[in-house]
Amino acid sequence: MALMKAAVFVEKNRIVLEDRPIPDIGPLDALVRITTTTICGTDVHILRGEYPVARGLTVGHEPVGVIEKLGSQVQGFREGQRVIAGAITPSGHSYACLCGCASQDGAGTVHGFKAIGGWKFGNLIDGCQAEYVRVPDAMANLAPIPDRLSDEQVLMCPDIMSTGFSGAQRGGVSVGDSVAVFALGPIGLCAVAGARLLGATTIIGVDTVAARISVARQLGADHVVDFQQGNVVEQIMALTDGRGVDVAIEALGTQGTFESALRVLRPGGTLSSLGVYSADLSIPLGPFAAGLGDYRIVTTLCPGGKERMRRLMAVVASGRVDVSPLVTHRFGLDDIEAAYELFAHQRDGVMKVAITP
Amino acid sequence: MALMKAAVFVEKNRIVLEDRPIPDIGPLDALVRITTTTICGTDVHILRGEYPVARGLTVGHEPVGVIEKLGSQVQGFREGQRVIAGAITPSGHSYACLCGCASQDGAGTVHGFKAIGGWKFGNLIDGCQAEYVRVPDAMANLAPIPDRLSDEQVLMCPDIMSTGFSGAQRGGVSVGDSVAVFALGPIGLCAVAGARLLGATTIIGVDTVAARISVARQLGADHVVDFQQGNVVEQIMALTDGRGVDVAIEALGTQGTFESALRVLRPGGTLSSLGVYSADLSIPLGPFAAGLGDYRIVTTLCPGGKERMRRLMAVVASGRVDVSPLVTHRFGLDDIEAAYELFAHQRDGVMKVAITP
Amino acid sequence: MALMKAAVFVEKNRIVLEDRPIPDIGPLDALVRITTTTICGTDVHILRGEYPVARGLTVGHEPVGVIEKLGSQVQGFREGQRVIAGAITPSGHSYACLCGCASQDGAGTVHGFKAIGGWKFGNLIDGCQAEYVRVPDAMANLAPIPDRLSDEQVLMCPDIMSTGFSGAQRGGVSVGDSVAVFALGPIGLCAVAGARLLGATTIIGVDTVAARISVARQLGADHVVDFQQGNVVEQIMALTDGRGVDVAIEALGTQGTFESALRVLRPGGTLSSLGVYSADLSIPLGPFAAGLGDYRIVTTLCPGGKERMRRLMAVVASGRVDVSPLVTHRFGLDDIEAAYELFAHQRDGVMKVAITP
Amino acid sequence: MALMKAAVFVEKNRIVLEDRPIPDIGPLDALVRITTTTICGTDVHILRGEYPVARGLTVGHEPVGVIEKLGSQVQGFREGQRVIAGAITPSGHSYACLCGCASQDGAGTVHGFKAIGGWKFGNLIDGCQAEYVRVPDAMANLAPIPDRLSDEQVLMCPDIMSTGFSGAQRGGVSVGDSVAVFALGPIGLCAVAGARLLGATTIIGVDTVAARISVARQLGADHVVDFQQGNVVEQIMALTDGRGVDVAIEALGTQGTFESALRVLRPGGTLSSLGVYSADLSIPLGPFAAGLGDYRIVTTLCPGGKERMRRLMAVVASGRVDVSPLVTHRFGLDDIEAAYELFAHQRDGVMKVAITP
Repeated sequence: MALMKAAVFVEKNRIVLEDRPIPDIGPLDALVRITTTTICGTDVHILRGEYPVARGLTVGHEPVGVIEKLGSQVQGFREGQRVIAGAITPSGHSYACLCGCASQDGAGTVHGFKAIGGWKFGNLIDGCQAEYVRVPDAMANLAPIPDRLSDEQVLMCPDIMSTGFSGAQRGGVSVGDSVAVFALGPIGLCAVAGARLLGATTIIGVDTVAARISVARQLGADHVVDFQQGNVVEQIMALTDGRGVDVAIEALGTQGTFESALRVLRPGGTLSSLGVYSADLSIPLGPFAAGLGDYRIVTTLCPGGKERMRRLMAVVASGRVDVSPLVTHRFGLDDIEAAYELFAHQRDGVMKVAITP
Repeated sequence: MALMKAAVFVEKNRIVLEDRPIPDIGPLDALVRITTTTICGTDVHILRGEYPVARGLTVGHEPVGVIEKLGSQVQGFREGQRVIAGAITPSGHSYACLCGCASQDGAGTVHGFKAIGGWKFGNLIDGCQAEYVRVPDAMANLAPIPDRLSDEQVLMCPDIMSTGFSGAQRGGVSVGDSVAVFALGPIGLCAVAGARLLGATTIIGVDTVAARISVARQLGADHVVDFQQGNVVEQIMALTDGRGVDVAIEALGTQGTFESALRVLRPGGTLSSLGVYSADLSIPLGPFAAGLGDYRIVTTLCPGGKERMRRLMAVVASGRVDVSPLVTHRFGLDDIEAAYELFAHQRDGVMKVAITP
Repeated sequence: MALMKAAVFVEKNRIVLEDRPIPDIGPLDALVRITTTTICGTDVHILRGEYPVARGLTVGHEPVGVIEKLGSQVQGFREGQRVIAGAITPSGHSYACLCGCASQDGAGTVHGFKAIGGWKFGNLIDGCQAEYVRVPDAMANLAPIPDRLSDEQVLMCPDIMSTGFSGAQRGGVSVGDSVAVFALGPIGLCAVAGARLLGATTIIGVDTVAARISVARQLGADHVVDFQQGNVVEQIMALTDGRGVDVAIEALGTQGTFESALRVLRPGGTLSSLGVYSADLSIPLGPFAAGLGDYRIVTTLCPGGKERMRRLMAVVASGRVDVSPLVTHRFGLDDIEAAYELFAHQRDGVMKVAITP
Repeated sequence: MALMKAAVFVEKNRIVLEDRPIPDIGPLDALVRITTTTICGTDVHILRGEYPVARGLTVGHEPVGVIEKLGSQVQGFREGQRVIAGAITPSGHSYACLCGCASQDGAGTVHGFKAIGGWKFGNLIDGCQAEYVRVPDAMANLAPIPDRLSDEQVLMCPDIMSTGFSGAQRGGVSVGDSVAVFALGPIGLCAVAGARLLGATTIIGVDTVAARISVARQLGADHVVDFQQGNVVEQIMALTDGRGVDVAIEALGTQGTFESALRVLRPGGTLSSLGVYSADLSIPLGPFAAGLGDYRIVTTLCPGGKERMRRLMAVVASGRVDVSPLVTHRFGLDDIEAAYELFAHQRDGVMKVAITP
């Protein structure tokens, strides 16, 4: 049995590089040899035991690689092709997929949540912080990389860009909108880029870290509000002449950012929530207009599937958005434990790391 | 100065029939002689001092009547025409109106809420529980009543049908959906009718009052869950084979109903909230899937304007929906204090009262 | 090699019942034993050589049956289950499917048309006017029949209801709309039912055959305009007080009906086209308002997939729509040539036939 | 009676600068002193007698100016304010406006067309190629110009940008789309900019004039196809790897461009038509997939109203789109006849002219 290196969740606070069997694949699967991957904030939640996965699971859900082997029933691809797959891997044939809600593919309750079934890599099945990964439902999920794009150029597509952009898309951002983005981590930065891509004309980022603010401006933020320099809500209301924003995007997952997002909405506006929360949320009565404000609150799980990936790579290939400033550090897979150490503690101005087996 | 009778908010717990001047009208207004009106749950909140309006304000926002006089600039109508106007009276020319959010017409903060500006009758200006009412922006708001419809047949259009139907419409109810409606007061009953009108095939009402349950079945409920007969969430999950509903409509305005509505949603489903809340709401983490469930929470303020009223009256005229069972009691305007007494205490199986000056 | 009876396109004007091998199935397929099927207007086009299919192909695309055998990779179903499959069988994993356009699944040009790739049964692969049919991509397409529904009750779901309803759905029919449906064959009748199901309040059918007009009224038409009794456009304009209809549904496939549909639209209205045309169409300049009328013209290929079928069967099961009057004649498979003879010539008031092997 | 200079349609081929009375205004109107305006291709149709307006009408529908006087009932503006108004001036209170179709405001047939009622300036009432113009329904239509923007910077907003952008918006352009724009006149160029603003990643312009092609590239075209250098359809299919475009925008108004737009659509794509046609159109059967291609054909009349203008000026103010290269020539109002001469014959590389009284 051939072995490979893989980053495995052993127990709380221990993700360890171990030898694991190279995955077997079934008729509908593909085996992809990973050439580049990365670590997500969600992986840090797993590391800390805040999000429950099975002990012994290989983690990671952002694969860039080369098709090593195709299942017997997989058509339309060839071995040796460079591909990515989304963090969420819809089957294509579930009721959820056929109902326009592909991220919620998969039946039944997952880890006590009744949703999130479409997230498989590093959650329900072995993930891609490894030399190889098994991609389920390969025909729906393998997305060929345009020749002229490097691994790093497409590394943000599987999760960060897909999630961040969908914050703007599900929020219904349209031409001439004002948009506020709360927290400028990688997801929030991509939400800024997404709002820009959809025609927003006043984009306000909220953060306090200089490096993130700088990247936000590169990606399209017109204003940045520093939450350490006065009241965020007041600053945003002032920037919009008291009108409030059309769309407020929450990209952190806390009560404070959620509530501020609600407070800066114009009547009839949309709160688009991307954060992964870890506690009950409170909706304050006044900002909610007692239920009469024609508000919408929308949440999104990262859209996946090869068509989504194709479109995101087209955004990169066309030069519309340049997310390369997000990759601040690079590690070999052998050093992934050090990469976790750096990333989990947000040291040295890290935004995203590139891991190369 | 000619006088008329009007129901006036005097102080907490006192709405009194008084003599008031017949309103003057400006060039864009109409004076409507009220022939029928009704009392809304919101009026009871006003009576109890739970929703703040100015002392001395004439209350009521559901007018049916006859055009007595038209402002000098009003075209397209004639005096003597039978009309209704919506509870919400958009101007047509505000940024909110031109942006597709007409209910939020009107600038600035209202009673400490930053929204709700489109609700004028009995809130910002004198209302229609009176012999006459001034209708602002008459060209946008006067809606001629088809000849063959009686006052009572259209009495639910200005608020109850418009609000209830929009619960289903903003919720995105579509063909083959499962829909749960929490609380079968007049608004909830119209939400049932609205869900039916939009093609839902499994409509589940939640209440415990026999008369309401009976009307819910007439209006299209396939199932009714009695919250006094076991766990509501479990019953609804069982009725949907464990799948949950596509759309859950909240029509009461409490934490309990809001939370149950969230708990019965399928992944990717929509919680459409119609209730007027009186306290902060809590979103429980698990049913919210930590923010990853692709859920939408939408709120609605009763859509108004003459086109909305025209369509709702067409629903009645076509026989698609028969809301006549909702009117359970009738009073003269002179007896409106008794009507409030009955309605506020929900005595004698009252659903809606018809008040005729 | 086991044989079965199948209706095969031999040559122009000859569809013949022949012995054919029972289909082999691959890992993703299912073999379904047909218990009921029907003949579609499109099959008549095939018969007449007006729509090109390969000689020797088994025709028919409306299967009701029982799962005889499942491919090795098919999960979630069991042999012996009663199922239908849509006329269009999307794979679930194509770019078209993942892009929200599942009916156009499949690559490349089909019969000289660059579209229509999702229509496989009786077009690209052997169809279901036979004792058995191979269902491709079974996990996306097999739809279990609720126990209490008979074969005939669900026989309209695979094509007629799905196509007719989508005429109303893609047309954007909403509450209070006026809708005209041009031609009341089975598809047009289902468009009437669909418009009713979506809240239209003035539904005008156009035809001249008494039996069809009678069924149209049962399914929800408020008015029927007989095109042999005066000018259709004038009659519809009169019925809508000169305003025109919000949505006009074309359900025949001719220049006359297409053009009349355009002529009765209100400014900003939608022409929803369901017909299969056999010649170039002309858009007259005046009714098209020289391109400035904010019109939409939308076309639809019957939506398929198990979720669509599930929803349509829910419509039947809930009693919302009763399409049983559409089945006017019944034949054994052995008599299918006689059924074609009757149906192709529209003899004896036939609407749809039920064929039972 | 005070007089002003105005460009008046006298008869076919004669638009003449004449003395005319400065308009009176009613209570809902505003009088705007024109500081800059321009000539539209539609004005040339009027000049040539191809589009019928009344003799003696002042032409022009793209006003930039200063509020000279407000009607007695107009609130929210002040005299001396710099404003624009859209080419289309919806009332805000019509059924069409309240139904989401404001451009079709106004009742009845206009010049033999049943639509186009929202276009008033230089069509139904005196236009703005003059020293003063009366703006009807001023509260819905006056849009204050941000201080830092010059007249020329906002001169494209009333018509060219609004129409061009809506070609992309009504076409449903979304992230990662391929879009082809047929004809790169001012409207087509703004359609290119609009497609870019909405996230299209492959934008293909079609024209042959070098100057227009150059501006198209500045505004976001990734490719330009020269229709004099080979078959347009083949070139576009090649540029999209045989897939076709998601959205094809027609911006000329001819059979050739309309038909090519249809031929390059992917199955399920949208043809967004902006051109003003002068003859019946033909839809060829094959490219239309006999009606089964899930195609949409949408048409648009320039959206107006102050909210639309506010958003377009925000696009300019934010630097998202720079349409200044469109203004190639400048004239005083006294020289407007020379400006017509130049513009009507498309001499000297003219795209748009700025006219300043």
